[in-house]
Amino acid sequence: MSRRAASTPPVARRILQGDRQALARLITQVENRDPAALPAVRSLYPHSGKATVVGLTGPLGVGKSSLVNLLLGHLRRQGRSVGVVAVDPSSPFSGGSILGDRIRLERPPGDSDVFIRSMASRGHAGGVALATRETVRLLDAFGMDVVLVETVGSGQSDVEIHDVATTSVVVVVPHLGDEVQSLKAGLFEIADVFCVNKADLPGADAAARYLNEMTQLGGRNGGWRPAVVQTSTVGPKGIEELWTAVARHEAFLDSSGTRQELDRRRLTDEILGLVRERVDARLAEVFAREPELQSFLDRVVAREIDPHSVADRLVAEIRRSA
Amino acid sequence: MSRRAASTPPVARRILQGDRQALARLITQVENRDPAALPAVRSLYPHSGKATVVGLTGPLGVGKSSLVNLLLGHLRRQGRSVGVVAVDPSSPFSGGSILGDRIRLERPPGDSDVFIRSMASRGHAGGVALATRETVRLLDAFGMDVVLVETVGSGQSDVEIHDVATTSVVVVVPHLGDEVQSLKAGLFEIADVFCVNKADLPGADAAARYLNEMTQLGGRNGGWRPAVVQTSTVGPKGIEELWTAVARHEAFLDSSGTRQELDRRRLTDEILGLVRERVDARLAEVFAREPELQSFLDRVVAREIDPHSVADRLVAEIRRSA
Repeated sequence: MSRRAASTPPVARRILQGDRQALARLITQVENRDPAALPAVRSLYPHSGKATVVGLTGPLGVGKSSLVNLLLGHLRRQGRSVGVVAVDPSSPFSGGSILGDRIRLERPPGDSDVFIRSMASRGHAGGVALATRETVRLLDAFGMDVVLVETVGSGQSDVEIHDVATTSVVVVVPHLGDEVQSLKAGLFEIADVFCVNKADLPGADAAARYLNEMTQLGGRNGGWRPAVVQTSTVGPKGIEELWTAVARHEAFLDSSGTRQELDRRRLTDEILGLVRERVDARLAEVFAREPELQSFLDRVVAREIDPHSVADRLVAEIRRSA
Repeated sequence: MSRRAASTPPVARRILQGDRQALARLITQVENRDPAALPAVRSLYPHSGKATVVGLTGPLGVGKSSLVNLLLGHLRRQGRSVGVVAVDPSSPFSGGSILGDRIRLERPPGDSDVFIRSMASRGHAGGVALATRETVRLLDAFGMDVVLVETVGSGQSDVEIHDVATTSVVVVVPHLGDEVQSLKAGLFEIADVFCVNKADLPGADAAARYLNEMTQLGGRNGGWRPAVVQTSTVGPKGIEELWTAVARHEAFLDSSGTRQELDRRRLTDEILGLVRERVDARLAEVFAREPELQSFLDRVVAREIDPHSVADRLVAEIRRSA
């Protein structure tokens, strides 16, 4: 169970040596929840924990992908290596996955310190969340200084950004409208940084003022008051300020001692997700194997027995099959 | 396990006699996933399966709640009793739940054949889905002819409408824009009926034409080609046509023999959800009881052991504790 006990699988060794193809293949396995990925994933774990993981979330159409692109450029000019994971179904990065043929912009010409990866956002909800976490961690172990994660923020998303990112940026646009609803529905509480994008449009100052007022209301996030910045992809403007706000929050995590606590909560969630994944796999086995189950289902459809009775039976079955 | 074996709990008897207060209280227990609800929920199950369950889903701001209101009026004029379950965080029905004080429009003045209920859309995703299914079923057992379920359709919603409804209506507005993305991301496949709402706006005919063309592409849903209707809450217009399309789909489910197959698939999903809920409850117990777990977590945070090791241990623990 300790890191010394396991020998490093060749794939993991290649990834630590900078082999991008090995990384891409392992991420594909992780995304498919292929158990073959497990030895490498496990042995790379001790090499993770160094990257700054920044999540960008917000409603559709606020320009998250453009911001990711601009941040990427900003960070590269500072000499930092950057991984990008796009889980947003509206993102141009992951747009292809909706249409069936995934687009993978894996290596912008001439830049080997960037690795962009889109995740399929359909499929088993918990599976996407686990795959995203493990992919972020693989990019971290690969040596990326920063990992940017883009998800759509419906407040009910498969991948909750604060489960993955050390700093969560919530992106909105000047005329909030429906987005205020989304904010109320959960995004507001998770924001470490608010980014009013498209600040060239009228109403940006008012939106920033409104958000600033809102952030004064509560003493949440262990004492951190969310920063509010304005950005525009026209120009572009505010990108440096956005990154400064992120860096300030990262510094706060260290100085306040909350980083470890967050790490712990995040890992607990992840472990619970892994347990559920294993139980689901057992459940599928039990389902496939039990000849009686089909007749039970018939009786549930006929309203002769109720769903809870069958659930109880399955739980007993999972426990029995050791 | 059979319906004869269990005696009917008093709460269930009162609900079958038309006691709205008993129904409201049981739904609250179901929503809180309170095990105390179980005996009544189980004994009411054989009384369900008679209602037409219609789901309305679609992006924020397309006017789903207004449509639900108009459908409600239409059905009441036909003399049908109607239950409404709103899971949409943007819905005026459930708007209160976002702000903390749930609004329950339980009895429009003078009409005892309407029961409106909003569900909290935050909290454990699987829990909301289970609570919604069971609430729909309680309204069904209570004797409602029709149950309307409103959810926001992000394509990643906690409550996937086709898991609950026998007919799924996907609501869009003339200028699709972002919504096309949502449609691509999953809503398109689940629609039994497309409703182009706000058809008083320009572009409605074009949107309806586009959707009609799309529905000709595939022979999905067991041979059903989704209907496309235009509605407007100004007037209002198209409400009768919308209901006619729903009724046509319901008739198709019977004539094609697909109703039972769908029922079976839906119940299988639900049973899996119930199993997960039980396993999660056990997991919480194990977590609370295991003193070693906290030190394991410390070691994961320190990158000494990996999350999969702890997950394996917990799975073993769940299985052992019979």
